[in-house]
Amino acid sequence: MAQTVAVSPLAPKSYPDLPAVEGVRFATAAAGIRYKGRTDVMLALMDKGTQAAGVFTRSKCPSAPVDWCRARLKGGKARALVVNSGNANAFTGKTGLQQAKFTAEIAARATGAPTGEIFLASTGVIGEPLDASKFEGVFESLVANASPDGMLEAARAIMTTDTFPKVATASVKIGGVDVTINGIAKGAGMIAPDMATMLSYVFTDAPIAASALQAMLSKSVQGSFNSITVDSDTSTSDTLMLFATGAAARRGAPKITTATDKRLGEFRKALDALLLDLAHQVVRDGEGCRKFVEVTVEGAASPAAAKKVAFAIANSPLVKTAIAGEDANWGRVVMAVGKAGEKADRDKLAIWFGTTRVAHKGLRDPSYDEKKVSEYMRGERIDLRVDIGVGKSTAKVWTCDLTKEYIAINGDYRS
Amino acid sequence: MAQTVAVSPLAPKSYPDLPAVEGVRFATAAAGIRYKGRTDVMLALMDKGTQAAGVFTRSKCPSAPVDWCRARLKGGKARALVVNSGNANAFTGKTGLQQAKFTAEIAARATGAPTGEIFLASTGVIGEPLDASKFEGVFESLVANASPDGMLEAARAIMTTDTFPKVATASVKIGGVDVTINGIAKGAGMIAPDMATMLSYVFTDAPIAASALQAMLSKSVQGSFNSITVDSDTSTSDTLMLFATGAAARRGAPKITTATDKRLGEFRKALDALLLDLAHQVVRDGEGCRKFVEVTVEGAASPAAAKKVAFAIANSPLVKTAIAGEDANWGRVVMAVGKAGEKADRDKLAIWFGTTRVAHKGLRDPSYDEKKVSEYMRGERIDLRVDIGVGKSTAKVWTCDLTKEYIAINGDYRS
Repeated sequence: MAQTVAVSPLAPKSYPDLPAVEGVRFATAAAGIRYKGRTDVMLALMDKGTQAAGVFTRSKCPSAPVDWCRARLKGGKARALVVNSGNANAFTGKTGLQQAKFTAEIAARATGAPTGEIFLASTGVIGEPLDASKFEGVFESLVANASPDGMLEAARAIMTTDTFPKVATASVKIGGVDVTINGIAKGAGMIAPDMATMLSYVFTDAPIAASALQAMLSKSVQGSFNSITVDSDTSTSDTLMLFATGAAARRGAPKITTATDKRLGEFRKALDALLLDLAHQVVRDGEGCRKFVEVTVEGAASPAAAKKVAFAIANSPLVKTAIAGEDANWGRVVMAVGKAGEKADRDKLAIWFGTTRVAHKGLRDPSYDEKKVSEYMRGERIDLRVDIGVGKSTAKVWTCDLTKEYIAINGDYRS
Repeated sequence: MAQTVAVSPLAPKSYPDLPAVEGVRFATAAAGIRYKGRTDVMLALMDKGTQAAGVFTRSKCPSAPVDWCRARLKGGKARALVVNSGNANAFTGKTGLQQAKFTAEIAARATGAPTGEIFLASTGVIGEPLDASKFEGVFESLVANASPDGMLEAARAIMTTDTFPKVATASVKIGGVDVTINGIAKGAGMIAPDMATMLSYVFTDAPIAASALQAMLSKSVQGSFNSITVDSDTSTSDTLMLFATGAAARRGAPKITTATDKRLGEFRKALDALLLDLAHQVVRDGEGCRKFVEVTVEGAASPAAAKKVAFAIANSPLVKTAIAGEDANWGRVVMAVGKAGEKADRDKLAIWFGTTRVAHKGLRDPSYDEKKVSEYMRGERIDLRVDIGVGKSTAKVWTCDLTKEYIAINGDYRS
């Protein structure tokens, strides 16, 4: 896959300082999986007793590491996470699972953790066998160098076509005690609902049991990573995991065993915001993007209908190319609403670009100021709002525009 | 919408001679709806008693002419067809339906046909009111000039971003008597299943009742116009109609009243082939296309599953950009199979480009000749075949590649 040199114009202007999460250490190395002259493997080491939760791609052809993680997650415990870029270890048959197991075994030897508590992910080319023997000897030095401060470097090591590392942090109180939540993510193309080509890992020192983590994560992903799309294509490798070391218990944080525990109120909000932040960063690194687009659907018959219509808009090549062309082409929005197949009443539909209503009651809004809208469309952020007019349900999804650069990144190469 | 000057590289090298269909006459004119210096309205006049059938967009926001036609089709009779380009008369509210009615009334005055037997279509920009008064006086000269030989010109008059007119013809026997089937189509973008941004009209002199025509058309569209996609976007205006003047009865052709009549055997086959030909021509004029792609899915659990997987492949931007880049990137095909959400077994999947099997049993085919495949990918036609390995159902769909030119056509303009 072509590596673009320039950083996305929608990249954050600066990275937050990531405070250490007690109980987690990071290290990265260049194992030479595919890329040269850059790190391509990261190891996260976690304290004994770390609780784990995860959600994975709904692809019917998942990668070997996804199969591996799903099976290991039943135990709810994690000691190490190994992520490599350059090779997805997907569609690699039985060899793929063997190489995943082999990777875990090498990591287990180096870290002393049981293989059942080692989680894996691979991202990069599909269909090429992963040669796990390249990790031999690498993990020992990773363990030796692991540091609580290595998280930004870890975010860099898992990049593929990403143009910037994606990180986020939050600090909240549980039972009056400060806990930290840090997250990293990667993803730029093959990004669609039901998890994107996307890896994201969130670490906290809060003492929260695996089942409670899982319940929170499964809920939070709906409004964040499952509400973004770059190109409607779903990866075989999508993985989002949440690890809680529990180290804050030593400072008096209460142990939480259920997701409904009221002391989680602040934590839950911070987790939602952090996942949304990371998901937005993935969209902001959408291949070839120049505009960040928020699509809001209101007045739908059900929440599912609202989301379906929102994605029909966000995935429409004609809507996305119009936005790239800085044209408030609401006719294409009507088209996308119509094709979603959900209940809609053409003569009740209203459409806004930014704060300007461009269409309502099945007609162009006669009073709208074209000059104002044209100026708005030149901006970097486009808010597109549609009121379907048939119910009370809403949805919000995020996408980017579709430019020639997307085609260049995904078509102008020879593999 | 930008008009591209060049003709699609996938355009047919020549047009067939269209024999006259007894009982139909065509005329075209430049009514100045939007375009200048080109014809933008066509009239087809049909003999009294002409039987009509039609299928229309499944968009929940259909255009006013689609609403008009659906209501008129209940009578099963047609005397005239009016199609304009330049304005879709879609999302134009009550005014839209008024202007459709007004158009029919002007046409009725000029042709002497009842308004209830006049069918309409409009294609072009969405959301602009259509000024039907532009047709005043135009229809009289159309009626005066209508000729059985005007069909190729009619195909030209309904073009929007099309780079070539789409026509097809067939001649078959019913009860030993020759009958003719001629068809025209338009469409280049906003092309997706459930009818594309696509208008197509088929005329025959065979004496077949409306109900039988409808049954044949509804069936035939599944494997033709409902099996193509350019960009996954569904238009508000898609219309396919089949008119039978019955003029061949004067030459002894038997009157057919049911679609199951055995004497329709040849006709039915010819209709299927003609619709497929026109549908392929639409794909071959796909905006910015350089390659014609046939996607065959075998071994699926059901016909619906096969078609869903086939469209997941045919609509995948990553598959389509890879084909544009002449890369046999079967990893992206695996991704598309996985995202379709239908039953699949990663370890039974097999994939072919042309006659070369590139992957099987969940692995790259170790014996495949990369040089041969690379050469194949440089061709103009790409056959992509996938065996899912879980059942016996098959589907075939057609699409084109996704190039920067598509973005240019749909993004590089100001409206």
